[in-house]
Amino acid sequence: MKFTQSFSKTSKDLPTDEQSKNAQLLIRAGYIHKEMAGVYSLMPLGFKVLNNIKRVVNEEMLKLKSEELIMSSLQNKEIWEKTDRWSDEKVDIWFKTKLKNNAEIGLGWSHEEPIVNMMKNHINSYKNLPATVHQFQNKLRNETRAKAGVMRCREFIMKDMYSFNVDEKTHMDFYSKTIESYMNVYKRLGLGDITYITSASGGVFTDKFSHEFQTLCDAGEDIIYVHKLENYAINEEVFNDETLEKMNAKKDDFEKKVAAEVGNIFTFGTGKCEQMDLFFKNEKDEKIPVYLGSYGIGITRLMGVMTEVMSDDNGLVWPHEVAPYSIHLVSLHKEDGDAVYNYAKDIYDKLIANNIEVLWDDRTGHGTGEKLGDADLLGIPMRVLVSSKTILEDSVEVKERIAKKEDGEIIKTNAFLKSYTEQC
Amino acid sequence: MKFTQSFSKTSKDLPTDEQSKNAQLLIRAGYIHKEMAGVYSLMPLGFKVLNNIKRVVNEEMLKLKSEELIMSSLQNKEIWEKTDRWSDEKVDIWFKTKLKNNAEIGLGWSHEEPIVNMMKNHINSYKNLPATVHQFQNKLRNETRAKAGVMRCREFIMKDMYSFNVDEKTHMDFYSKTIESYMNVYKRLGLGDITYITSASGGVFTDKFSHEFQTLCDAGEDIIYVHKLENYAINEEVFNDETLEKMNAKKDDFEKKVAAEVGNIFTFGTGKCEQMDLFFKNEKDEKIPVYLGSYGIGITRLMGVMTEVMSDDNGLVWPHEVAPYSIHLVSLHKEDGDAVYNYAKDIYDKLIANNIEVLWDDRTGHGTGEKLGDADLLGIPMRVLVSSKTILEDSVEVKERIAKKEDGEIIKTNAFLKSYTEQC
Repeated sequence: MKFTQSFSKTSKDLPTDEQSKNAQLLIRAGYIHKEMAGVYSLMPLGFKVLNNIKRVVNEEMLKLKSEELIMSSLQNKEIWEKTDRWSDEKVDIWFKTKLKNNAEIGLGWSHEEPIVNMMKNHINSYKNLPATVHQFQNKLRNETRAKAGVMRCREFIMKDMYSFNVDEKTHMDFYSKTIESYMNVYKRLGLGDITYITSASGGVFTDKFSHEFQTLCDAGEDIIYVHKLENYAINEEVFNDETLEKMNAKKDDFEKKVAAEVGNIFTFGTGKCEQMDLFFKNEKDEKIPVYLGSYGIGITRLMGVMTEVMSDDNGLVWPHEVAPYSIHLVSLHKEDGDAVYNYAKDIYDKLIANNIEVLWDDRTGHGTGEKLGDADLLGIPMRVLVSSKTILEDSVEVKERIAKKEDGEIIKTNAFLKSYTEQC
Repeated sequence: MKFTQSFSKTSKDLPTDEQSKNAQLLIRAGYIHKEMAGVYSLMPLGFKVLNNIKRVVNEEMLKLKSEELIMSSLQNKEIWEKTDRWSDEKVDIWFKTKLKNNAEIGLGWSHEEPIVNMMKNHINSYKNLPATVHQFQNKLRNETRAKAGVMRCREFIMKDMYSFNVDEKTHMDFYSKTIESYMNVYKRLGLGDITYITSASGGVFTDKFSHEFQTLCDAGEDIIYVHKLENYAINEEVFNDETLEKMNAKKDDFEKKVAAEVGNIFTFGTGKCEQMDLFFKNEKDEKIPVYLGSYGIGITRLMGVMTEVMSDDNGLVWPHEVAPYSIHLVSLHKEDGDAVYNYAKDIYDKLIANNIEVLWDDRTGHGTGEKLGDADLLGIPMRVLVSSKTILEDSVEVKERIAKKEDGEIIKTNAFLKSYTEQC
């Protein structure tokens, strides 16, 4: 993509109505647009990043043999009444609206009930189990406070997965595999070293009922206690003598840290399926309630957390897996069609021909400082600079966005093109 | 994908609460699940078909150099008040809800206003134009009647595209290109021969302000008059002496047909941008309102129309471009691991290794009639049968879903595998 072909612009000004670092940066870089507090539209760059995060998560879920589907946003009141989760007293984040005939309907903040209800058409025998489904759904939640940018939205994309098993044992086998898959996701997104699994149900971190995944992040809303030597953490709510005793650990072994929840997994057991009448016949023809699990990852939230922990004073810093482009090509030409422009165009054409995702800053009449500033702000992993100086040596200046040093490395253009296209 | 790995089941029973043929078939085949009137969730097969339709449409929009983004579902009241489209008297399909502070918000039934509003951050000079953006958005519309299955939903995916130009001339150039792109879409989906462009604004079919695309379909809601010899049609509303005179045509030249709208394109001119304060500076530094166009294709509706016009008495019939799988492999084995099963498994493994999308009916204990019936119902374009008879000849029986004849063609398995993998 050429800069001049995209409508999207960066901005020097900090948005005045935005307190959170992630939203400020993403708005300035043109990744998102604020519609109202806690509601953001995704501009082309943000759309690409979100889709890349989805792709990583989806690949890991498909490895678990989960099937992708998508449920509706509009929700049937009757389904939620079966589990007593329709009333605003029981669930205080419902957005509700009405059909023309005045019948109340809801807007999906979760899909446990409708997915269990739908499964009644497909599960009636042990032969139909196990089954696992997941979706990337636009959740709507009537949050009272929405001041954390895309980390806590009133509208956001969530990956929610649901597992259906015959009993606790087969459920727990799947549940354990999911923990691995989740850790793979965070590793691939570059968050592996700062993400911990913690217990979320008052038990210890080996608890089998429910877990959270917490990423160290100053903008997070949670406090966790991270073991100084071993690779686990304990949520503040359960960081007490009882838990420490179970873990055979001492208070002083832990460091208090601020973290953001980036995933959670639940064991529902058979309760919800009993309430909603999802039963199967076992081999003895007995009627048994299905054993349910639920597994969430906030995709939009992950984009916010990655912005918070990976950005620096100059702007965004994306890892290769999720970056909207692999290469940010900057040409410091004076006018369209001069030697520097044509040199850069040749590189651009060759990268495009090799299916490399490249963004070329082909703007004329913009200063070096502005172009390099925008490259830092946009956070694409590799910056490739073409100037009147580099073309004299038939070279480009290559710099990783993550690198601290001011200047990049001068590399012969042929060698750069060759190594890069081979690497891909 | 193996049948036994998927939770999705077909059903012999017609849904009792569903009048439309498309929803009946899609529900029976396990493509969709009904949540309430006009609201359907997409099961794995339906999700794949919808994504394939999206892919075709997206490819054509990207060729127009449109940039993909996605706007929020939650809508800011103030933005819609600027064009007087907030009140229920003016727009009678709003779903509305409230934030905790009691502030009213809407749910996106269209995105013209928010996209124009967003563009104010990006367009201020003629240098920023033209710009084109599109999205695949989950529209919510409070329809009074929703009895046409997925052809008229209260929740559905729509591709909406918006073009921003400096003047009418550049707009009309783009508008004309869009007509070509739309016709490419319908051609690729197999609807080319029965889809007509018609005028939608009371003018003739060469009218420059607004057009519809209409597909002949008995379940459609529109009447069009199709020219018996030439390749155009006229909407019922404007099929009168005045129009016929302009077209230099006679009433008798036309045949009355029932059709379904599968796309529409609008020229807004500068009105909406004036209302919403989207102006740019031209080369003389004069402030000029942006010239706006809007282009819609109902993706979910297309899935319904394709179901209506392509299905037969036995079930769905998908063209290759949108089918959830390319090959439906049916093995008539008696038990897991017998000669027929292993023969089919070998074919399955080879197709998978060649990245061919294949669905293998690997079920044991299901009769030939049931398996062939399900193959017809699911509508995957090519059925490949393995039986104790075919393996004796080292062959498979290949039958196109669309073929009328009862039996397929016996082909040597090696030749089938070779030709198919080379074809792809």
